[in-house]
Amino acid sequence: MSDELRARASLSRVVEPRDTAIAQLVATVGPLETLERIVRGHGGLQRFAPRVAALDVERDLAIASRVGARVVIPGDPEWPESLNELAIPPWCLWVRGDSLERLARRSVAVVGSRMATSYGESFAADLGASLASRGWTVVSGAAFGIDAAAHRGALAVDGPTVAVLASGIDRAYPAAHKQLIERVAQAGAVLSEVAPGSAPMKGRFLHRNRIIAAMTAGVVIVEAGLRSGSLNTARHAEELLRPIAAVPGPVTSMSSAGCHQAIRDERATLVTDAAEVIELVGVMGDDSLEPPRGPARPGDALGPADAAVFEALPVRGWMELDRIALVTTMAPLAVRAALARLEDDGLARCLEGRWRKPTPPRKAPPSCGE
Amino acid sequence: MSDELRARASLSRVVEPRDTAIAQLVATVGPLETLERIVRGHGGLQRFAPRVAALDVERDLAIASRVGARVVIPGDPEWPESLNELAIPPWCLWVRGDSLERLARRSVAVVGSRMATSYGESFAADLGASLASRGWTVVSGAAFGIDAAAHRGALAVDGPTVAVLASGIDRAYPAAHKQLIERVAQAGAVLSEVAPGSAPMKGRFLHRNRIIAAMTAGVVIVEAGLRSGSLNTARHAEELLRPIAAVPGPVTSMSSAGCHQAIRDERATLVTDAAEVIELVGVMGDDSLEPPRGPARPGDALGPADAAVFEALPVRGWMELDRIALVTTMAPLAVRAALARLEDDGLARCLEGRWRKPTPPRKAPPSCGE
Repeated sequence: MSDELRARASLSRVVEPRDTAIAQLVATVGPLETLERIVRGHGGLQRFAPRVAALDVERDLAIASRVGARVVIPGDPEWPESLNELAIPPWCLWVRGDSLERLARRSVAVVGSRMATSYGESFAADLGASLASRGWTVVSGAAFGIDAAAHRGALAVDGPTVAVLASGIDRAYPAAHKQLIERVAQAGAVLSEVAPGSAPMKGRFLHRNRIIAAMTAGVVIVEAGLRSGSLNTARHAEELLRPIAAVPGPVTSMSSAGCHQAIRDERATLVTDAAEVIELVGVMGDDSLEPPRGPARPGDALGPADAAVFEALPVRGWMELDRIALVTTMAPLAVRAALARLEDDGLARCLEGRWRKPTPPRKAPPSCGE
Repeated sequence: MSDELRARASLSRVVEPRDTAIAQLVATVGPLETLERIVRGHGGLQRFAPRVAALDVERDLAIASRVGARVVIPGDPEWPESLNELAIPPWCLWVRGDSLERLARRSVAVVGSRMATSYGESFAADLGASLASRGWTVVSGAAFGIDAAAHRGALAVDGPTVAVLASGIDRAYPAAHKQLIERVAQAGAVLSEVAPGSAPMKGRFLHRNRIIAAMTAGVVIVEAGLRSGSLNTARHAEELLRPIAAVPGPVTSMSSAGCHQAIRDERATLVTDAAEVIELVGVMGDDSLEPPRGPARPGDALGPADAAVFEALPVRGWMELDRIALVTTMAPLAVRAALARLEDDGLARCLEGRWRKPTPPRKAPPSCGE
């Protein structure tokens, strides 16, 4: 475990998310020196003294380990690149479950009111299921109402889903969702930017919302009153130039008033199903997330290594691993790993140790004369 | 009764609305000569022979008279100017009820599906009532579903409403709405561009829709399936550069699918109440209709004569009728009529035969020292 990881884990205990002064310090002198100065009560940093006194990073790491959580920091392979688009990224993430990078690659935030109607919850569950069954990770906040329905929809089809908590990774909030959060951790991932044991304070919900917005290719607001917290998530998405979708409902329902307002203000696009959501985040989403444009094509949404290997594979004939390594200028071991992932995804075929792209669907196989 | 009126009334019997060849002829040689050529079976016009054989304009005028209808033609004071924006305006209008020009001046089309849900009908009735009670004429097509609900809403508050029929002015269609159409004629007006007795054929509904769009400052679609006829009205409004509003509903309701599609396509603006409708048609509507910009101000939406007289009235002190006639260069009788209308609308006050503007609301009355 690196010193930087320990330093960042310590920062997540001592410093609230989005502390501007500390963010500048981290950017200038790095997390270790920043922590050092905070611990020493360096000029202007005395305000952290009470928390420094209680700091015990080994204990936090032990708690995390007990609940099956790890610490992920910028630069780690699974650190979602898109989080670096935030003005102040998390100091670190406490994570349970699968690789975040893999989950975030094709992901959509599905958020909404805690005071949801059965119409909204039913739609959120359907949407979560449809998105997840099309390979999109459903990211939400595990709250009552729309959030929980979206997670449950994804879980119902054994699809990927991620819960971003405002509390510590070891604290289920709301407590009634302890089991739901457990299931999300098993099917996808649960994460938090604050240290284990941290209480879900109001400010932390607002900080948390920016992670939901940054991790995903776009945000869907299913139901929101005019002052719903989900509109805060939408504002973060707006700042990050992510597309925002909103679901209409009866104009008589105050739970849809925030959605209608966002559509009227042209801040959100009206959507009525998963296909429209995918069209929106696919066309307008951040390209670094490689969302599909129109119908998904094989090779969309791959990481750089897998994409390079996929690109190198022939459509006809077969290619040996060493040749692929040569073409891609990648190490043979890395090529082997990429090929294994591509084969899992049905994007590579192997015959007697040689490789090619799979025959494209809806197309007659090439005849011998070709 | 003028020859032109008889000629145009005859055209409405013999020629279908939007006949391009006849429209060109009317524009070139006028309605009398056009009718003459049709009756004589002039080159290329033999196709009208069967209808010419059955033509009896005096009988049509007698039927109209029996049901209390008159014929209104372009150039008549009550001919709504906005109808001239149509590529091919009606040959004439058969009208029962109040002055069309007055009714059309501040008017909104409220249209939608015949297969409406109770949600849609209830909203349409509320919207009709709210618009009408704010002085906006609710224009619709007297059909089952949304149309009828919109008319009924306006009637419920004794507000102005206009039904544009696809059948002859003497034929209630649908028959079940005979009483509704009667009440609309009493509260506002009922009109048709086809001759008395004409059946409501499919093409005539589409022609009729263009009149609804042209007469009004904008169109509200309350509920529409993906192939609803009300979307045809919206297309006419689009061609005429009128704003289109659409009301959202549950995404599970196919009766709202056409509304959602129009909003997604950015052809319609999402609206949730009458204030939003008025904001839309007021800001973006055709200026010739003098819709209010933002909050309505006294004197908005007046005809030219009334506006001139209103303009001339002093805010303080009093002005005699002869002086107003002098200032406005209008005939004293016309001034008297305008003053009567302004007084009815609360826009003029009279004291001992002299006139002034009413004290503005929300403003302290001018003190003597001012």
